[in-house]
Amino acid sequence: MTSSLQAALDPGSIAVIGASENPDKIGGRPLLYLSRFGFRGEVWPVNPRRDEVQGRRTVPRLSALSRAPDLAIIAVPGEAAVAALDECGAIGVKVAIMMASGFGETADPAAQAAERAMVARARSRGLRMIGPNAQGLANFGTGAVASFSSMFLEAPPQDGPVGIVSQSGAMSVVPYGLLRARGIGVRHTHATGNDADVTVCELAAAVAADPALRLLLLYLESIPDPHHLAEAAAIARDRGLPIVALKSGRTAAGQAAAQSHTGALANEDRLVDAFLERHGIWRARDTTDLVAAAELYLKGWRPGGRRLVAISNSGATCVMAADAATSCGLDIAPLREDTQGRLRAILPSFAATRNPVDITAALMTNSALFGQILPVIAADPSADAFLVGVPVAGRAYAVDDFGRDTAAFAQATGKPVVIVAPQEIVASPFRSRGLPVFPGEGEAVRALHQLIAHRERMAAAAGRPPHPAPPPPARTPPRLLDEAESLGRLARAGVPVVRHRLCRTAEEAVAASVEIGGPVAVKGCSAEVAHKSELGLVHLGVSGDAAVRAAFEACRTGLAAAGHASSGVIVAAMARGRRELVLGAHRDPVFGPVVMVGDGGTTVEAMPDVAVLLPPFSEAEVERALGGLRIAPLIAGVRGEPPLAVAPYLAAAVAVGRLMVEEPAIASLDLNPILVGTEPGACMALDAVVFVEGTP
Amino acid sequence: MTSSLQAALDPGSIAVIGASENPDKIGGRPLLYLSRFGFRGEVWPVNPRRDEVQGRRTVPRLSALSRAPDLAIIAVPGEAAVAALDECGAIGVKVAIMMASGFGETADPAAQAAERAMVARARSRGLRMIGPNAQGLANFGTGAVASFSSMFLEAPPQDGPVGIVSQSGAMSVVPYGLLRARGIGVRHTHATGNDADVTVCELAAAVAADPALRLLLLYLESIPDPHHLAEAAAIARDRGLPIVALKSGRTAAGQAAAQSHTGALANEDRLVDAFLERHGIWRARDTTDLVAAAELYLKGWRPGGRRLVAISNSGATCVMAADAATSCGLDIAPLREDTQGRLRAILPSFAATRNPVDITAALMTNSALFGQILPVIAADPSADAFLVGVPVAGRAYAVDDFGRDTAAFAQATGKPVVIVAPQEIVASPFRSRGLPVFPGEGEAVRALHQLIAHRERMAAAAGRPPHPAPPPPARTPPRLLDEAESLGRLARAGVPVVRHRLCRTAEEAVAASVEIGGPVAVKGCSAEVAHKSELGLVHLGVSGDAAVRAAFEACRTGLAAAGHASSGVIVAAMARGRRELVLGAHRDPVFGPVVMVGDGGTTVEAMPDVAVLLPPFSEAEVERALGGLRIAPLIAGVRGEPPLAVAPYLAAAVAVGRLMVEEPAIASLDLNPILVGTEPGACMALDAVVFVEGTP
Repeated sequence: MTSSLQAALDPGSIAVIGASENPDKIGGRPLLYLSRFGFRGEVWPVNPRRDEVQGRRTVPRLSALSRAPDLAIIAVPGEAAVAALDECGAIGVKVAIMMASGFGETADPAAQAAERAMVARARSRGLRMIGPNAQGLANFGTGAVASFSSMFLEAPPQDGPVGIVSQSGAMSVVPYGLLRARGIGVRHTHATGNDADVTVCELAAAVAADPALRLLLLYLESIPDPHHLAEAAAIARDRGLPIVALKSGRTAAGQAAAQSHTGALANEDRLVDAFLERHGIWRARDTTDLVAAAELYLKGWRPGGRRLVAISNSGATCVMAADAATSCGLDIAPLREDTQGRLRAILPSFAATRNPVDITAALMTNSALFGQILPVIAADPSADAFLVGVPVAGRAYAVDDFGRDTAAFAQATGKPVVIVAPQEIVASPFRSRGLPVFPGEGEAVRALHQLIAHRERMAAAAGRPPHPAPPPPARTPPRLLDEAESLGRLARAGVPVVRHRLCRTAEEAVAASVEIGGPVAVKGCSAEVAHKSELGLVHLGVSGDAAVRAAFEACRTGLAAAGHASSGVIVAAMARGRRELVLGAHRDPVFGPVVMVGDGGTTVEAMPDVAVLLPPFSEAEVERALGGLRIAPLIAGVRGEPPLAVAPYLAAAVAVGRLMVEEPAIASLDLNPILVGTEPGACMALDAVVFVEGTP
Repeated sequence: MTSSLQAALDPGSIAVIGASENPDKIGGRPLLYLSRFGFRGEVWPVNPRRDEVQGRRTVPRLSALSRAPDLAIIAVPGEAAVAALDECGAIGVKVAIMMASGFGETADPAAQAAERAMVARARSRGLRMIGPNAQGLANFGTGAVASFSSMFLEAPPQDGPVGIVSQSGAMSVVPYGLLRARGIGVRHTHATGNDADVTVCELAAAVAADPALRLLLLYLESIPDPHHLAEAAAIARDRGLPIVALKSGRTAAGQAAAQSHTGALANEDRLVDAFLERHGIWRARDTTDLVAAAELYLKGWRPGGRRLVAISNSGATCVMAADAATSCGLDIAPLREDTQGRLRAILPSFAATRNPVDITAALMTNSALFGQILPVIAADPSADAFLVGVPVAGRAYAVDDFGRDTAAFAQATGKPVVIVAPQEIVASPFRSRGLPVFPGEGEAVRALHQLIAHRERMAAAAGRPPHPAPPPPARTPPRLLDEAESLGRLARAGVPVVRHRLCRTAEEAVAASVEIGGPVAVKGCSAEVAHKSELGLVHLGVSGDAAVRAAFEACRTGLAAAGHASSGVIVAAMARGRRELVLGAHRDPVFGPVVMVGDGGTTVEAMPDVAVLLPPFSEAEVERALGGLRIAPLIAGVRGEPPLAVAPYLAAAVAVGRLMVEEPAIASLDLNPILVGTEPGACMALDAVVFVEGTP
């Protein structure tokens, strides 16, 4: 955390430029909040036209202060805001929050240029800026509430273990409001606006260092600076602090809307997924999703696995819990036989005891059944988490006992427990004992799955080496290497490539074909041709001296006719495998080197079945990525066929990842097809297209 | 609707066998409800040990009544329940509700047999039974509440436009409770238990005929009788009544749980999807989903298309609404240029006017903006539905005006409008004016999508011919036809097949190869071999008399060596297409004939990319099914390639559907591959495997 951002989160003094008497005005509300929420530092309202606002003495201008405030809130619009920011820089303010709109988020190039210019001037004086178009920062731990949100009037704050950092003002306080309505305390609620200087990700890294936090929520419309988010994730992981991020602009329509909201640049969405996963951050799909598992995180549970036991007085809850668990990859594993025997001794004969455990409607006439079976289930080691569903109960049931017994059960096992209780009368005795309650089986199971899968993701992310930053933009368009150079470069990097010779003469080609043996492929080689087939430069299955000679001549004349410089003619072995895979890599302007693995051949663009990985990564990570693809069953071997020998492919993918990290000059590469067979020796790239930066 | 089920829904008289003074007992609660909820018919408590229960005179036994009640509630357990049912049959009761558990839902064969026997005895006397293991029926239109659910004590009923029919007791009242909490009236809340006689689907057909209903919700753990559900769907569609069904047991774990709940048989889940879609029924995923769009249905909106306009004071809501819309297939189409011009004249320069419309935080200082832009947007014809998001507001905003203006807007357009307002203070002025309010963009957009897509589905289902019932179980295993017979049968049905001859001698084979021309395929033909390749009975690309003769001999000796009867040897043209598709059909024991279309070749089992259709269906329906597959881009034509000529394949699929409907003797068929090329003539089945019922 830089000291500037510490000053933003925990300032000793705050100036409010454009301070207003009216607490419903942008320049009035922060003053109200600083008083109401107990800020103990100094507060200096700046207003040239009044001596006093909201009971505090003003100064007419910032320069009239005897010393610079740590934080300045700029609540004046347009030109005045720009002038105020410059004044902050001049007197040595550490951080300024620019609330004014009408800069980089507009389509106006002049306004965008003004934003860039003010950032440059601020930075040159050591001033950090949050905004413009920022709702501001709110820290309920210190009372430093430098925000004009109306939400803190509607839903009174309470300091607590959750932090929220958002570009959007609304999306800082919507999750705040949802959590507060559920009684959860929130310490940080920050909205950063256009992120022209300080970004959500940079601020998140500062917030993640707060030792009181136990859950950090982010709302992002763009990730221009993944290295800051990586830093935040590393700080959080070190402390076991989970980060849940809602990154919107998932779709083209969403990205267009984000562009007109904060001027956000579009990220390629599958790279966002890959980046968040790599760093152990969970991705939420929407607002409800962002806060759905909050109670589970705050319990501090550390699940040991994916085996879920469901317990209910409703068979339907049992069925739906089993469906939901299977759908999201949790196991409904049977309880141990001895456990089932003990349950059978308690429950009626028509109850189910395997898992799910269906107490049946017998609970209506004997509420004690609930408390009797829980200790039996608690003693069984074959469960990692529990769902307790009481979809219906009423005055005939001892619902308070259910809450008490379940709380004791949760305490005894130390394992996650979620409750399904759509009726408030039933939910209340569970909730009052700190158990997370959901209205339906779907929500409960999905929250539990999130907790479990997120903790798995955080564990997997621990100790991963850093992912390199993207390169500076290239000054010249990357240039193509010819096929021989491309194959050579990849072979040196450790990628198996087809046996081949680059031949200058027909005699060399014939000699190469004899040396290689059997029918060969004969291909024109040029650094000016990426797609050879279309120019008739690929001759397959060529046998015999005369045919090789003819194919050589066809390639030579084909290149000449098309006016392309020739590097010669490649003679290569005709290789066969069981499946054509693909291996590609490029450099994303935001996320840096990216490697693509998956199914290859001619349909890779029309029907992609690929995964992206951010290097460096291990062979196990490549294998896991392949396991999530449609071709996974082919790799494992289908219908009695032997499995594919993918180990050399995994190694090749790791080698390509290493190459992209170690040789920044390589702009992109595409190996398609790279053959995989049932024997390791069958794995080889048949073609390679490499683009490099710089002049030859 | 049969008169028996009318009697169940609207009985003139009800007997309660096992009537109890205690309203918390199963035999006491229906009596309480019949009094409390205004049932006007006669009520006869049956209790041999008391003269009076709950203020009503009892009879000692059913036979003591002067005439038979329309409906009998059997609230005694076990043997006594069975005896009571027989007594109901003897005196001419129309419908009995068996609340007792411990029959077909247990793993006990004796209990299951007892259930079958009591159904048989009841039916022989014209008595219909609901249950056993049934919570009972509740009709708040007539006050005939023959249910022991405690829910009607917790959430007081109100007659209204929703009907719920459920196998599960809990899942009849959970949606009831969720809807009542939202102020929605529910007329029918029925739980049928084991469905040993009357099923959910049969009862649903009776309920669907209620002219007051505007939404019908079903919970099913099994569909043993799709014809009843088809009937319910037809009745509902004729009246424009939407049916939303939650069919659980989607997964193997869920099916296992359902089996131990109500003894339900497992349905193949993709056939459930296909069946529900065919009949215009929407499928909900879970409880929350089941009631998620209720308010939208009850508004009676008939959406004209999929173009959504989103309007918010938050850019984040705009972005997330656009993401959610794209994700579920709604269009964020731009507003007309003139509309945008008029909006620009009202809104600040940094607002967005294209769609989504971002009013921006300027709304905080000028609440009137909201009411000013809505009429402008209402006048634009380029929208089919609207999302209005006010994620944050408070005392500085004229939130009541927002509700008033939006209600006027909804009235003016007549088009669906959903509101996003997580804060209650904001939600309330919209909700009080009858507008559907959601806590997040995701929920709002998904509910809107459901309304639109469900109405599309209902329109598509209208006028579809009936799907034939499944055949009675076959007495003998189906037998294989040999390839020549199979191809012949399909060719006669209108499926294009490869040119071929069945040859008895090597001379015939040579002659056939000459007639066909070019290299040929030579294949051993036997009604005892479904997988020829494994026995070396397939010779491809055979050229020349000698080679044809040799291949013929190899097939003949191969069949003889394996001990299989030979029908001869097939000589067929070697055909090529651009893609190998598959076309298959079988008879599901529940859903009857099923046709499978999609990608073919050797990976169809390992990596299925297929859709199922219930015949009869049209070519357009096949085309739409293919459009949902992964191979859809290949069919449309990729990278400048011409599209596949699928018309003959579509016709072949329709022909196979017709064949399955018209020839019940065909048990299953499998055409893989069926070639498709860029010319219509390329389409042909290269191989066929047909199984038929009955002896040759």
